[in-house]
Amino acid sequence: MAQGTADIETLIELLSKLPGLGPRSARRAVLHLVKKRKTHLSPLAEAMTTVAQTARECLNCGNIGTADICPICEDTRRENGELCVVEDVADLWAMERAAVFRGRYHVLGGTLSALDAVGPDELRIPKLIDRISSEHINEVILALSATIDGQTTAHYIADQLGDVKVTSLAQGVPVGGELDYLDDGTITAALKARRTM
Amino acid sequence: MAQGTADIETLIELLSKLPGLGPRSARRAVLHLVKKRKTHLSPLAEAMTTVAQTARECLNCGNIGTADICPICEDTRRENGELCVVEDVADLWAMERAAVFRGRYHVLGGTLSALDAVGPDELRIPKLIDRISSEHINEVILALSATIDGQTTAHYIADQLGDVKVTSLAQGVPVGGELDYLDDGTITAALKARRTM
Repeated sequence: MAQGTADIETLIELLSKLPGLGPRSARRAVLHLVKKRKTHLSPLAEAMTTVAQTARECLNCGNIGTADICPICEDTRRENGELCVVEDVADLWAMERAAVFRGRYHVLGGTLSALDAVGPDELRIPKLIDRISSEHINEVILALSATIDGQTTAHYIADQLGDVKVTSLAQGVPVGGELDYLDDGTITAALKARRTM
Repeated sequence: MAQGTADIETLIELLSKLPGLGPRSARRAVLHLVKKRKTHLSPLAEAMTTVAQTARECLNCGNIGTADICPICEDTRRENGELCVVEDVADLWAMERAAVFRGRYHVLGGTLSALDAVGPDELRIPKLIDRISSEHINEVILALSATIDGQTTAHYIADQLGDVKVTSLAQGVPVGGELDYLDDGTITAALKARRTM
């Protein structure tokens, strides 16, 4: 494929490996960028270079930021004794968008998985246990996926933590959800955890 | 949204404006990139910077490359008297992927459109007329979209070109196409242009 030149082909190739993009959408994106070199491509190239140079994982919680300790761990107003355990940085961002949790986070970096040979030491679980005493945590909220691996991980962590109060997110009907479209498992969970009105 | 830091948010914002991406897929892409800083983000940032600095439109045909004249226009083996007129660089790339046309291209940069106030001078049509004599073209192949605007543009160009032979791509059933899923217009065109076997 004599598409423009080697430089442009390299860019298409690298973009096409992003999750959610393929060769066709990468070509479309590159054509768009080349047409908007001044207003879009140059700022994007600069932003990428900056992030490539500065991004790192928070040594405390595993969140992504540009310093050794992330803004959430630095913020003393968030030192309220609550620690929310999530699988991935994407989940931390999702919690932050909901803007309802005011404590701190701990990013595991995955779930325990026998198939993928992921054990407790791969998952920042020792660091979690350290933090519970060093940061005077009195409630650990397990915000893990409602999958087999997520729930296995939740039970393992709850076993390890000993005295501290451990809670998990409620399961039930999502806001805006129609019963007709929900799976049997969700309906069963919602019925079991029914509330008095 | 306290998502990491300002640098990362800027990168998400810029990526989310690419065609085919939105805020959610941009966040996913950035998380992936930050995790693969060394192997994916740095090369991508470099490729973008290079393209931002070097990409330009070919002064002759409008293709995108890194020199004033693109490799196809430079290639004397492609000087076979055939000139393929396309709307956009994406169409040129699609023709090159098919690897069946061995002549040169002319990228219009769009179609005539009364609604969007696009006239012949916005479309590199004067340059096309120049090239027909200066490059000794004996066949102009109009590879324009089978839309109203594309066909209007094709008829306008055919009128302007005078003596040179002007052809257009055949219309009919696409390879692998099932009649059941084709629109009436395509079936009509395919029937009108039926061939003796």
